[in-house]
Amino acid sequence: MAYQVHGVASSRNCYKVRLALEQLRRSYVWHEVEVDVMNGATRTEAFRQLNPNGKVPVLQIDGHTCLFESDAILFTSPKAPRCCPRTVFRGRVSCNGFFEQYSHEPNIAVARFILQFVKHPDDPRLPEKTTGSYRALDVMETHLATRTYCIGEQYTIADIALYAYTHVADEANLDLGRYPAIRAWRLVRVKAQPRHIEMPGVDV
Amino acid sequence: MAYQVHGVASSRNCYKVRLALEQLRRSYVWHEVEVDVMNGATRTEAFRQLNPNGKVPVLQIDGHTCLFESDAILFTSPKAPRCCPRTVFRGRVSCNGFFEQYSHEPNIAVARFILQFVKHPDDPRLPEKTTGSYRALDVMETHLATRTYCIGEQYTIADIALYAYTHVADEANLDLGRYPAIRAWRLVRVKAQPRHIEMPGVDV
Repeated sequence: MAYQVHGVASSRNCYKVRLALEQLRRSYVWHEVEVDVMNGATRTEAFRQLNPNGKVPVLQIDGHTCLFESDAILFTSPKAPRCCPRTVFRGRVSCNGFFEQYSHEPNIAVARFILQFVKHPDDPRLPEKTTGSYRALDVMETHLATRTYCIGEQYTIADIALYAYTHVADEANLDLGRYPAIRAWRLVRVKAQPRHIEMPGVDV
Repeated sequence: MAYQVHGVASSRNCYKVRLALEQLRRSYVWHEVEVDVMNGATRTEAFRQLNPNGKVPVLQIDGHTCLFESDAILFTSPKAPRCCPRTVFRGRVSCNGFFEQYSHEPNIAVARFILQFVKHPDDPRLPEKTTGSYRALDVMETHLATRTYCIGEQYTIADIALYAYTHVADEANLDLGRYPAIRAWRLVRVKAQPRHIEMPGVDV
């Protein structure tokens, strides 16, 4: 049975799931969800049956099993050939995912959202988000300076998790010029993966 | 070989790891880290060799393998009898972990930190953090109203992840009176688990 993906095409967190499924050659049906972009959630009761937190993306595996939280979906995609490494290696992948969702995405994605979509460069949150973004990029730069991919020599879903918003960090007015290792990883190595896709059109 | 845990006894994110290791009967050596509590990180080069993001807790498995990010440590603890469920079940556990680190802890823990440690009730972040905290607690209440534990009838590390800060939500001036399912889970069922421990003394 094909997976059912409930998402918003313009969301990069949803894009992560789409990219992973494409690269894993999994068949899936995409269900575009109407979402209040300003708070990033849908509050309908029907959708809350899928995810009580009311957020996209949701991966519906069968009639009664849904996964949500984009990185959790990535890290547990069944039959993922290089996505479910065992024990310690899986742990290292997971570390990157939690780093992304705690220290990276809440800064870079929110700064970009303020600048590109709310278009409010005087938003009082922006300085703190910018500082946090550079702190996260500093960590990535140090990490990638001695590795080909996030975990080492192997492309994994940790790279997908971190690529989604790092790829558009310049739209958060972040200067990637000072990050050569990130640029080489982002512009060359991730893009060169088989079945790599980009997002179409304007995204959030 | 015993695990080496680098942590701060007063951190509830570190407590998660300690609680899990106690309940899993794993032997470990605790290394208390000197940390700048105001930014939650240690910036020494030696510590950054363990975790490039400079944060506790770190679980050092051997001389060259470290796990970091508290929930990533929980979800990948080797030999965890009920902590490494397979595929979809593991995915559901992971969903709870990412929910905790994205929507729950950044609100409840930060609101509590502002009120109990910075002691600055006029902090401009507080209203947003309080709103976000109640939103997360609403999600938990709905979820736990029809389940014994976070994943169903089985106590897992998802419960540990969510217990850490839910347990002290009242110290963030959050009213748990309206959440009977959370209170029954927190006050009775989690505490009744074999080898349950509480944190000693003042914590952050």
